[in-house]
Amino acid sequence: MVPATILARIDSQKQRYINELQDFLRIPSISTYSQHIRDIRRAAEFVLSHIRKLGFQASLHETERHPLVYGHLQTSPEDPTLLVYGHYDVQPPEPLEEWISPPFEPAIRDGCVYARGATDDKGQFFTYLKAMEAIMDVRGSLPLNVKILVEGEEEIASPSLKPFLEKHKTELSAQVAVISDGSQFAHGIPAITYGLRGLSYFQIDLTGPRIDLHSGIFGGIVTNPIQALTEILYHLKNPDGTVAIPGFYDDVIDLEKWEREEMASLPHDEDALRSYLGIDELAGERGYTTLERKTARPTLDVNGIWGGFSGEGAKTVIPSRAGAKVSMRLVPNQKQRRIESLFVDFVKSLAPRGVRIKATTLHGADPVLISRDKPGIRAAEQAIEIGFGKKPVFLREGGSIPIVNWFKEVLGLETVLLLGWGSPDDGAHSPNERFHLDDYHRGIRAVAALLHEDLV
Amino acid sequence: MVPATILARIDSQKQRYINELQDFLRIPSISTYSQHIRDIRRAAEFVLSHIRKLGFQASLHETERHPLVYGHLQTSPEDPTLLVYGHYDVQPPEPLEEWISPPFEPAIRDGCVYARGATDDKGQFFTYLKAMEAIMDVRGSLPLNVKILVEGEEEIASPSLKPFLEKHKTELSAQVAVISDGSQFAHGIPAITYGLRGLSYFQIDLTGPRIDLHSGIFGGIVTNPIQALTEILYHLKNPDGTVAIPGFYDDVIDLEKWEREEMASLPHDEDALRSYLGIDELAGERGYTTLERKTARPTLDVNGIWGGFSGEGAKTVIPSRAGAKVSMRLVPNQKQRRIESLFVDFVKSLAPRGVRIKATTLHGADPVLISRDKPGIRAAEQAIEIGFGKKPVFLREGGSIPIVNWFKEVLGLETVLLLGWGSPDDGAHSPNERFHLDDYHRGIRAVAALLHEDLV
Repeated sequence: MVPATILARIDSQKQRYINELQDFLRIPSISTYSQHIRDIRRAAEFVLSHIRKLGFQASLHETERHPLVYGHLQTSPEDPTLLVYGHYDVQPPEPLEEWISPPFEPAIRDGCVYARGATDDKGQFFTYLKAMEAIMDVRGSLPLNVKILVEGEEEIASPSLKPFLEKHKTELSAQVAVISDGSQFAHGIPAITYGLRGLSYFQIDLTGPRIDLHSGIFGGIVTNPIQALTEILYHLKNPDGTVAIPGFYDDVIDLEKWEREEMASLPHDEDALRSYLGIDELAGERGYTTLERKTARPTLDVNGIWGGFSGEGAKTVIPSRAGAKVSMRLVPNQKQRRIESLFVDFVKSLAPRGVRIKATTLHGADPVLISRDKPGIRAAEQAIEIGFGKKPVFLREGGSIPIVNWFKEVLGLETVLLLGWGSPDDGAHSPNERFHLDDYHRGIRAVAALLHEDLV
Repeated sequence: MVPATILARIDSQKQRYINELQDFLRIPSISTYSQHIRDIRRAAEFVLSHIRKLGFQASLHETERHPLVYGHLQTSPEDPTLLVYGHYDVQPPEPLEEWISPPFEPAIRDGCVYARGATDDKGQFFTYLKAMEAIMDVRGSLPLNVKILVEGEEEIASPSLKPFLEKHKTELSAQVAVISDGSQFAHGIPAITYGLRGLSYFQIDLTGPRIDLHSGIFGGIVTNPIQALTEILYHLKNPDGTVAIPGFYDDVIDLEKWEREEMASLPHDEDALRSYLGIDELAGERGYTTLERKTARPTLDVNGIWGGFSGEGAKTVIPSRAGAKVSMRLVPNQKQRRIESLFVDFVKSLAPRGVRIKATTLHGADPVLISRDKPGIRAAEQAIEIGFGKKPVFLREGGSIPIVNWFKEVLGLETVLLLGWGSPDDGAHSPNERFHLDDYHRGIRAVAALLHEDLV
C-alpha cells in the first residue's frame, strides 16, 4: 500500500507537474513528418534526461526512423520487475484552423491542458515519471525494479519496436508490463482493459477475362468478376449477422456471467450513439448487447472494394479484375492462423467458375484476454481505487494493440496492464486534444499506488 | 434491279475509288482532340464537296463542337426517300507505336487499306458516295430520293445529333434509313443486323454511418455499406444466371424458330472464344447458346464498384459510403422506362436497415427489332446478294446504337438498315485499322443495288 506521505507529496507538487508536462508538450515531435526529425530527437532526449535524473540507467537506441528510449532502475534482483511502455511521438496536428489554441503551445482551459499529445501519449506516460519522482523524493528508492521503454514511432505503426524487443529480449524481461495509452470508460469512470480483439486482414483479388470487355458484346456469356466478388462477400455472413465461415466460432469462449453483468452495468446511451453515427438503426449479431458486440464478439467487415468503372457517367464495361479488403475481428480463443486458413478455404470454395481467385493475408493479431485473477490485475484495481477514489470497471476493447501481442509473443509477458488515464472525449488524433488535469493528477497517484502493490 | 451497266461501271472504277478513299483517310479528323478542329472541318468539307458534285443540295450545320453535313437530292416526290447516315470523324490513333504504317498515311497491304477510319466509318460510308456517283455516271439520276446525314461527333457520343434531328424533323423525313458502320458476321459472310439490345444503366449510392469508422471500435454494431451493397447486387441475379428483378422478363419475346436456326447455322468456335477471353468457362443463362445469350437475351452486369480503402496494405475502416454502376441489356419488347422502375423498386426493397440508398439512371435505350418481312429488309437482302455474291445472314447485336433509337423516336423511322461492309477483325478503334478492298468494292456494288430495290 502506497504511503500517505507519497500521495501528499504528489498533491503538493500538482502545479509543478503541470508545468513540466507543458514543457514536454511544447516539443512538436510529429513522427510522420521528416521535417520534425530534430523535434523528435529533442523529445527523446527530454525523456532520457528525466529518467536519468530519477536514477535510471538509460540510453537512446537508434532505429531507421526515430530513436527508442530505454532505461532500467534495479532495486533488488528478488523484487518483481515492471515494464512501463509509452511513446513520445504525436500525430500531425492538422487541420490547424480548428485548434482554439496552437497545438504546440499548451493552454489551460476548463480544467484541461490543451495540446497535441496531451493525452496521446505524453500526458499519460508522464504520470509514470512524476509518480516515480514523488516516490524517490519521499523514500529515496522505488519499491520494485522498473524498466522503461518509450518509442517515437507509435503513430507510424511502430516499425522498430518488435525488432527491438526481439534483439533485447533478455534485457527487457519483466513480470508485468503497463501501458497507459487509452482512456477510462468515461471521465470519472476509470477502467482496466483486460481483453482485446484480434485481427485477420485479407485482400481478395479476382480475375475473370484477360481484358476489360464491352458489356454489349460480351454481356451474358462471361462471369463478371465484380459479381463473382459480391457473391463471395455476401456468403461470408449469415442473415442473422453471424460469420458464415465454417468453424469460425469453434474456439470462441462465451462471455462469462460477470462480464455480461459488468458491461450491462455501464452507462450506455444508444440514442446518442445512433445520432453520433448518423444512422437509424444499429446492426449486428443477435443475442448480444451493443457493447458486447463491439468489444467481445467476433465480426467480419469488408474494408474496401474496387473494380471496373467508377468515374462520372456510364461506361459499359465488364472488368477483367475486381478486389476487396476483408477483415475479421477475433475474440479469445480464436487463433489468427487457424482463422486465416478457414477463411482462405471458404473463400476459394465460394468462387464461381470463370474467375481465378487469390487471397492474401495483409495483417493479423491474436486476441488477448488477461485473467481478472492475475495479481497484476488485482494490484491495478487497488491502485486505481486509491488514485481515482473509485473502483475501476473491467472492459474489453474492440480493436487490437499490436504492442500487447508483441509483449506476449516476444517477451512472454502474460500480464499487460492497459490502464487508460485519459477520457474518451479527449480528442486523441483530433484538433483540440486535451487531458483533464484531474485525470493527470489522479493518474500520477494511481501509478504511485500501483508501484506499491503486489504485482506478482 | 440494278442495271448491269452500273455494276460494270463500278468494277471499272475500282482503283479510282480506292485512290479517292485514301484522300479521305489522309485527313486526321479526330473528334476527341481539339487541336484537330481544322482537320475535322476539312473532312466535313471533303464530304460536302463530294455530295454537291453528285448534285445534292447540301450544307454544313454548325454545332457546339463539329459540323454536321446534310444534303438531299430529290428525284420525284412520289418516289420513296432513303436517309443515309455516316460519320466522318475517327477515333484517336494511339498507341502510335503499334501501327505498322502511319494511321493517316493510308497503305495498301494484303488486299486491305490500312488507316485510322478505314472501316469506322469513312470507308464504309464512302461506298454510298461512290455507288451514287456510278449511278449518276451511267443514268444521270438516282432511282429514288436520297438524304445524306454525316456527323463529326460519333466517336464522342454524338452530342449534337439528337437535337439536330429534333430541329430538322420534317426536312429529314424518310421511309427507310441505312447505316453502314458495323461489320459482316465474318469476312465473306455478309449480314443484316435486324435486332439490337437496349440498355438501362444505373448508379447505386449507399450511405451508412455519416463518417468512416474504425472497424475495431465499431465492428459488429453497424451495417457496413459495402456489405449492404454486395447483398443487394448478389440478389439481382438468380443462381441460374437469370435476372432476379420481379417482372424483368414479362415483356421479353421468345426467339423465333428461324432465328435460333439461323444463329445455330453460323460458324462459332467456342474454344477460340474462351482462349481469346482468357477464361476456362463461359457463363450465363441456361438453355441458350452463346450467340443467343450475347445478342438476344437480356442480362445484367455490374460495371463498376467502389467503397472504403483500396490502397496498398491494410486499413481497418468501415466506410461511410459505397457505390456501384449496374446496367442491364434489354431485348425486344422490354421497355427501358418500365425496367427502370422495376429496378429501382427492387433495389430499394433489398436495402438492409441502417443504410440509405439512391438509384440514379445514367443512360437508357430501348431494344430494337426490325421485322424480316419489311420491304426494306427484303431489299437489303437482295442488294447484298448482288453486291457480295452471297445471301446475308440475319443477326442480332448485343449492344445498342443510340442513333437507331433516335431515328425511331424522333423521325418515326421503323426501318433502319444496319448493313456492315467491314469485317469483325478490321480493328475499329485499334491500331492498324483496315478495310478489305474486296469488301469496299462489294459494298459499293451492294449500295448501287440497294438504291434500285423497292424499299417500301
